[in-house]
Amino acid sequence: MLLYDLAGADDRLRFSPYCWRVRLALAHKGLPVETRPWRLTDQEAIAFSGQGLVPVLVDGQRTVHDSWQIACHLEDTHPDRPSLFGGAAGRAYAQFLDRWYEHTLRPVLPRLVLLQAHAAVHERDRGYFRSSREARFGNRPLEEAAYTTAQGQALMAQALTPVREVLARSPYLGGSDLGYADYIVFSGFQQARVLGVAALADSDPMQAWLQRMLNAHDGLARQAWVLPAAAA
Amino acid sequence: MLLYDLAGADDRLRFSPYCWRVRLALAHKGLPVETRPWRLTDQEAIAFSGQGLVPVLVDGQRTVHDSWQIACHLEDTHPDRPSLFGGAAGRAYAQFLDRWYEHTLRPVLPRLVLLQAHAAVHERDRGYFRSSREARFGNRPLEEAAYTTAQGQALMAQALTPVREVLARSPYLGGSDLGYADYIVFSGFQQARVLGVAALADSDPMQAWLQRMLNAHDGLARQAWVLPAAAA
Repeated sequence: MLLYDLAGADDRLRFSPYCWRVRLALAHKGLPVETRPWRLTDQEAIAFSGQGLVPVLVDGQRTVHDSWQIACHLEDTHPDRPSLFGGAAGRAYAQFLDRWYEHTLRPVLPRLVLLQAHAAVHERDRGYFRSSREARFGNRPLEEAAYTTAQGQALMAQALTPVREVLARSPYLGGSDLGYADYIVFSGFQQARVLGVAALADSDPMQAWLQRMLNAHDGLARQAWVLPAAAA
Repeated sequence: MLLYDLAGADDRLRFSPYCWRVRLALAHKGLPVETRPWRLTDQEAIAFSGQGLVPVLVDGQRTVHDSWQIACHLEDTHPDRPSLFGGAAGRAYAQFLDRWYEHTLRPVLPRLVLLQAHAAVHERDRGYFRSSREARFGNRPLEEAAYTTAQGQALMAQALTPVREVLARSPYLGGSDLGYADYIVFSGFQQARVLGVAALADSDPMQAWLQRMLNAHDGLARQAWVLPAAAA
């Protein structure tokens, strides 16, 4: 399988939360994948998918785009492998969380990592990144639309209240088993992390879950390349 | 089984969303129940449960309070009956929605039905209702804390976005099968409905789901007694 995966100026920087969901879903299923670094302005490279966003997964003769569609594709084509959803109700749960993320975390996270993402994208993506994000966040300069770490962490903590309450009683969002519900929420933290931003205060009770997620699948997320400034 | 169920001045008015969840869960399991009308100031009547809120379910020798605990109790003691959750992942989903409701709909719904609920409670509950709700909503008179129908409907519509997006693809929140996930969200609409308040605009695409919920279990929710002012 081949995954077109959003990359920064450095090929190794992979910072799309939606691509991370697919990476983790593939690891969950035990399916090997080759990732191909892709930039926002590489529209021609994925034109064969009929649209212009990653993740795009090429699985033999089939091309699937959109992280949710890819998760369903993997679950449906590999029912014998460990389940991403844990059944029909679990699939509905993941679908709800997918939508909840868009309306709860997505208004916050991209503004928390805005300047870091702008600095990290490939030079040829930078103009597009600035103009598209400035339009999205109220036609203001990126520098004004960006949240400080303190602002972003406070908004994240508030938005995550239901998640935190479930994790107070269960090791994973899906209950006792790791699954796609966790990957959805974790993907945002991984985006922030590889860009060198802490989306969660060190004292947050969700840190234990975050560590479990970083360790999952032989530390796939933990081993991801992180911007040097962040590692410092 | 015996359920202590929040009632208004009129015994027939049952307007607690949490008690409605239990009523629907019992119907889902096909378990008959006797409901006992209870008022906010009837603390002695449920002192045996060790706390002061309804729903309280007496199931033979066991007493269970808190709607979530009651749902889990019913699922665990009647595994042979139709499942409320659809498995472990579905139980985690319902738990998430239970918490999501508290942080998303609960800040809105009680303020949308505030004046109607105040008028509907038993005379002996009215002082307690006013003082406790005024304290909860910023130490303002009820009349100032209450949302207009238009305000409340707009806030509800916004809060319900992830729900609406799931229901655009599935007949129920839990996917193809009716279950406790639906009862959680529906319970707020039923509270508003019996108090004569429309929590959803007539044009809202969730109306089809709302009608399915009102029809479920031989129209249990639809047949509920509604304040006469509302019926007019």
